[in-house]
Amino acid sequence: MIPYNPPLADMQFALDHAAGLEALASLPGCEGADRDTVAAVLEEAAKLARDVLAPINMSGDQEGARVENGVVRTPAGFKEAYQTYVDGGWNSLPFEEEWGGQGLPAVVALAVSEMWNSANMAWALCPLLTIGAIEALLKHGTKELQETYLPKLISGEWTGTMNLTEPQAGSDVGALRTKAVREGDHYRITGQKIFITYGEHDMAPNLVHLVLARLPDGPAGTRGISLFLVPKFLVNEDGSLGARNDVRCVSLEHKLGIHASPTAVLAYGDNEGAIGYLIGEENKGMECMFTMMNNARLNVGLQGVAISERAYQQARDYARTRVQGRTLTGGKSDTPLPILYHPDVKRMLLAIKSRTEAARALAYFTAGQIDRARHLPEEADRAKAQLLVDLAIPLVKAWSTDLGVENSSLAVQVYGGMGFIEESGIAQHFRDARITPIYEGTNGIQAMDLLGRKLMRDQGAAAAAFVALMRELDAPLAEQPGDDLAVLRRSLKNGLDAVEQATRLLVESFAADPARAAAGSVPYLNLFATVAGGWLLARQALAAQAQLARGAGDAGFNEAKLMTARFYAEQYLTPAAAQLSAIGGGATVVAFDPEQF
Amino acid sequence: MIPYNPPLADMQFALDHAAGLEALASLPGCEGADRDTVAAVLEEAAKLARDVLAPINMSGDQEGARVENGVVRTPAGFKEAYQTYVDGGWNSLPFEEEWGGQGLPAVVALAVSEMWNSANMAWALCPLLTIGAIEALLKHGTKELQETYLPKLISGEWTGTMNLTEPQAGSDVGALRTKAVREGDHYRITGQKIFITYGEHDMAPNLVHLVLARLPDGPAGTRGISLFLVPKFLVNEDGSLGARNDVRCVSLEHKLGIHASPTAVLAYGDNEGAIGYLIGEENKGMECMFTMMNNARLNVGLQGVAISERAYQQARDYARTRVQGRTLTGGKSDTPLPILYHPDVKRMLLAIKSRTEAARALAYFTAGQIDRARHLPEEADRAKAQLLVDLAIPLVKAWSTDLGVENSSLAVQVYGGMGFIEESGIAQHFRDARITPIYEGTNGIQAMDLLGRKLMRDQGAAAAAFVALMRELDAPLAEQPGDDLAVLRRSLKNGLDAVEQATRLLVESFAADPARAAAGSVPYLNLFATVAGGWLLARQALAAQAQLARGAGDAGFNEAKLMTARFYAEQYLTPAAAQLSAIGGGATVVAFDPEQF
Repeated sequence: MIPYNPPLADMQFALDHAAGLEALASLPGCEGADRDTVAAVLEEAAKLARDVLAPINMSGDQEGARVENGVVRTPAGFKEAYQTYVDGGWNSLPFEEEWGGQGLPAVVALAVSEMWNSANMAWALCPLLTIGAIEALLKHGTKELQETYLPKLISGEWTGTMNLTEPQAGSDVGALRTKAVREGDHYRITGQKIFITYGEHDMAPNLVHLVLARLPDGPAGTRGISLFLVPKFLVNEDGSLGARNDVRCVSLEHKLGIHASPTAVLAYGDNEGAIGYLIGEENKGMECMFTMMNNARLNVGLQGVAISERAYQQARDYARTRVQGRTLTGGKSDTPLPILYHPDVKRMLLAIKSRTEAARALAYFTAGQIDRARHLPEEADRAKAQLLVDLAIPLVKAWSTDLGVENSSLAVQVYGGMGFIEESGIAQHFRDARITPIYEGTNGIQAMDLLGRKLMRDQGAAAAAFVALMRELDAPLAEQPGDDLAVLRRSLKNGLDAVEQATRLLVESFAADPARAAAGSVPYLNLFATVAGGWLLARQALAAQAQLARGAGDAGFNEAKLMTARFYAEQYLTPAAAQLSAIGGGATVVAFDPEQF
Repeated sequence: MIPYNPPLADMQFALDHAAGLEALASLPGCEGADRDTVAAVLEEAAKLARDVLAPINMSGDQEGARVENGVVRTPAGFKEAYQTYVDGGWNSLPFEEEWGGQGLPAVVALAVSEMWNSANMAWALCPLLTIGAIEALLKHGTKELQETYLPKLISGEWTGTMNLTEPQAGSDVGALRTKAVREGDHYRITGQKIFITYGEHDMAPNLVHLVLARLPDGPAGTRGISLFLVPKFLVNEDGSLGARNDVRCVSLEHKLGIHASPTAVLAYGDNEGAIGYLIGEENKGMECMFTMMNNARLNVGLQGVAISERAYQQARDYARTRVQGRTLTGGKSDTPLPILYHPDVKRMLLAIKSRTEAARALAYFTAGQIDRARHLPEEADRAKAQLLVDLAIPLVKAWSTDLGVENSSLAVQVYGGMGFIEESGIAQHFRDARITPIYEGTNGIQAMDLLGRKLMRDQGAAAAAFVALMRELDAPLAEQPGDDLAVLRRSLKNGLDAVEQATRLLVESFAADPARAAAGSVPYLNLFATVAGGWLLARQALAAQAQLARGAGDAGFNEAKLMTARFYAEQYLTPAAAQLSAIGGGATVVAFDPEQF
C-alpha cells in the first residue's frame, strides 16, 4: 500500500497567503470559516483521504471498473468508501444550508477536494461530476426540480453526470444530435452520449444525468442546444424511486488511466425515449453548460495539483530510501547515499514541489475569488472578483493539468527503472494524469476561452487589472533584505512586463487575424499562469520571511518556502518571459501549408 | 491497423544536409555509400518496416511477452518478422566485411534503424541490444571469441543482451555483486540480473549475454568489475550448440509500455555456475561497458526520434480526418473543418514535427561524425570528429528521449478524448516512450556524463570547438535574403552565445563546487541540444532556400522545411537562452535542505 499524507501545512499556508482565508472569514456568509474550524475540517478530511481512499487507489487501477449487461461494478472498496464519504457529510460542504449544505467557502471545499483527488483521482471523479450537476440545478433549475433533486445530490446520496460528448461532437458541442421532444411537462430524449464519467455505477441508488440535446425546432449549432435532467430512476411524488428510465450503459471504454472510473457510452431512448426535464430555458443549454463546466474546470485543474502532490510524495519517499552512488560534495566518502541527496534528484523533486505549490496557490486563490464574488458586500467588488475568476479558471485548468503530466513524468524519472514497472505504483499517476489536459475542455480550448472570451470581451482590461494587482507585491518585496526576495522581485517584474506585452500583442492581432492570435494562445496561457503562480509563491515567500524574522512558525518550513520560491523563479519564472517569441510566432503557424504536414 | 510510412524524403534530407553523406561517401571505406545505393537501401528497409513490423506493433502491445517455466514467448508475428529481418541481411549492415558485414556507414544503419523503431519499438529493441554486444566483442574480444560469436551475432542468427543492473545496482554500476570465479580458460558466474531486455525469448536459437561481474580478488566499486560473455547454450568446437548454460529467466516485468519486449530477471548459477568468457581484461569491465553503451545510447536517442515520428504521423492522420468546428479565419463558413486546420492543432503538429526533425538531424549528424572518426584519412581529423561524437551522444540520448515523451504526449492531446482510449493506438507511444529517458543511463546520468566527463576532461575546449563549428553557419545565413533565415540567424547566434556562457559557468563552478554545477547539468544539456538541433535545422533551411532559388527539388517540401525551421526558432531556439537562469540556479538546489522535502 502506497501512503498518502495530506500536506496540511502547505495547504493551510496557501489558504492563508494565496486565498486570504482570514479576510474571507470576516465576510457575511463566511463566518463559519474561521481558522480553527477550517483546520479541524481539513484534519478530518485528511483521515478519510489517507485511511480510506488512498489504500484503494492502486487496487482500483488494477481491478478497474467492469460492465456486464449494462450493470457497472466499481472496484473493491469503492462503494463502501463512497458511503463513508456521504455519511461524513463531505459532499455538502460548500452548499447552501437551505438545501442541507454546510455553507463553507468554496476554497475550503477545494482544499478538501484536493485530498480526495490526491488519494484516489479515479474515485474522486464521481463527486466532482455531482458538483457540476448541483451548480447547474442551483442556478438554472426550477423550484420543483431543485426540491426533488438537490437535497439528495447535495448529500451525495445520488450522484450526477455531465452528458455533452457524442462521437461527432467533442470540442464542437454544437454538432451534437441527441434529440429532445416535448411531451407535456417533460421531454423524451433519444441519442447516444460517449465519454460519460461515472455514467453508470454501483455506488449510489440513483444517478442524475445532465444531458445536452437538441429540440426539433431549435436553431443549428450551439444556439439550438438545451439542457435536460434525466434521472436513471424516475422519482415518485413522495421522493421514492420509481420506474427505470430509458437510458442504458452500452459499454465502458478501455482507457490509458483512471481505470477505476467507469467511462460510459450511454444510449438514451432505445425504447420509448428517456424522460427528461428542462433546465433553464429552451435553446439556452450552453449557458447552463458553462455553469456546470466552470466549476468542473477549476476542479480538473485541481486534479493536476492533486496528482502532482501524490506523485511528489511517492518520488520523495522512494528517493529517501533508494541508496545509490556517493556524494559529489563530500570527497571520497565511502557511505552510499539515498538518491535524495544527489543534486539532479534534488532538482527534479524541487521541480515537482515548486510547481505543485505554485499551482495549488493559484487554484486556491481562484476559489478564494469565487467566494469573494459571492460574498463581498459591494457589487463592484464582487464584479471585480468575478473578472479575476473568469481569467483564472482557464489558467488553472490548463496549466495545472499540463504540470500534472510533467510532474508525474518527472516522478517516474526519479524512480529510474523501477518507475517503468507497474508494481511500483508511480506509473499509474503518469497514466491517470494524461486525461486531465483533455477533459472538461481540452487545454487548447481553455487557451481560446482565455483569448477569445476573457481577453477580447474587454480588450484586455480585466487582464490589465490582474497584472496591476500582481504588481502591488513589488513594493513589499523591495522593502525586504536578502537575495531570495530580490531574485523573486526581479523575475516577477520581468514576467509581468511580458504578460502585459503579450496581452497587448494578442488583443491587437486578434481583430486583424484571429487565427494568428489563436496560434499564440497556448504559450500565452502558459506565460500568464507561470507568472501568476510565481506571484503567489512570492507572496508566500514574503510571509515566510516575515515569520522567520519574528521567529514565528516552523523555521524549516519557512526556509523551504523561501528556497522553493527562489527555485521556481530561477527555473520557471525568469525563463517564462522568453515565451514572447512563441506567442508572437502565430504568423508562422498560420502560414504553414497544412498539405505539407 | 495503424499505418506507418517511413519519412524517406526527410531522412534523405537529413543524410544530405545534417550528416553530409556526399562527403562521407568519398572517404576510403565508405565507397559503397553513394546516394543511389543508400536510397535503394532505405527504400527496401521501408518496406520491411511498413509492411512487416508496423502491423504487429499494436497487437504486440496488447498481447505482450509471456513467460512460463522460464520459457518466453514473444507476441504473434515477432519471431517471423525477426527471421525476415535476418534473412534480408539487415542486421549486418554497418559491420566489417571480414565478419560477414556489409560495411555501410554507421549513419546509414542509423537511418534504417530509425524505421525499425518507428514501426515497432518493442521489437526493434532486440537488434539494438545485439549491436551493443557486437561492438564490445569487436573492440575487446579475443580472436577466438570473435570467431565463435561474431559471425552469428552480426548476421543476427543469435542475439545479444547487456546485463548490468542488479536490484541494488542501477545507475551505481559499481554496487553490483554478481560473482565470477576463474576456472581454467573460463569463469563461473553466479548472481541475479534484472531489467534484461530480451534476456530470454523465442526469436533466436541462442542468446549471448554480456554480463558485468566481480572477481573475488577485484577492488571495490567500478574498478573491480569485469565483462563476461555468457551464452545461453554453450558452443561446440564445430560451432553447433552444446549444453544449456546455467542461466535462467526467473520472471518478466509488468511494465508501463513496450509490453512486447520481454524484460527479464535472469538468475546465473542456480546450479554449478554459468560458464562465462572474459571480454577485455580483468577489472576493466567498465571500459568495455562504455563501448557497448555508447552505441546503445545513440540508438536509444534515436528511439526518441522514432517514436516522435510515429506519434506525429498518427496525430496528423487523425487531425486530417477528424472534423470538428469551423474556421476562425474564413468568417462564418458553415463547412465543418478537419481539426488539422485549427491554429492550435497546427501549432501542436508543428511542435512535434519540428522537434522530431531537429532531433533526427542531430542523431544523423552524430552518426556521420562516428563514420568520420573511423574513416577520415588524417588522425587529427578523426580525433576531432571523435570529440564531437563524445559530446553529442549524451545530447542525442537525453534530449531526443525527453522529446519523445513530450511529442507523444502532444500527439495524445491532438486526439483529444480519443487519445485516452487505448483502441486509438496513440496512447501506446506515450507509454512506450516513457522508458527511453530511463534506460541506457538515465537522462540525469547523461547530463553528468556531458558535464563531468565530456566538458571537464578538457575544460570545455571540445565544446568550444563545437560552438565554433556551429558559428560557421552565420556567414552563409547572413548572405541570404528574406525574413525566415534572418530569424534563424539571430536566434542561433543568441543560442550559441548562451551555450558559450553556460559552458564557462559550469566549467568554472565544477572545480569549486561540483554539486552546484551538477544541479545545472540537465538544463545545460537541454540548452546545448536545443541549439545544436536548431543549427542543423538552419543548415537544412539554407539548403531548402537554395533549392527554391534554383527551382530544384520539391517546392512544397522546401517551403515546409523553411517554415518548420522558423517555427522551431520562434518556439524553442529563441527561448532556449533563457535557460541560463536555470543553469545558474544550482546554488539554490544545493542549499535546499533535503529534510524539508
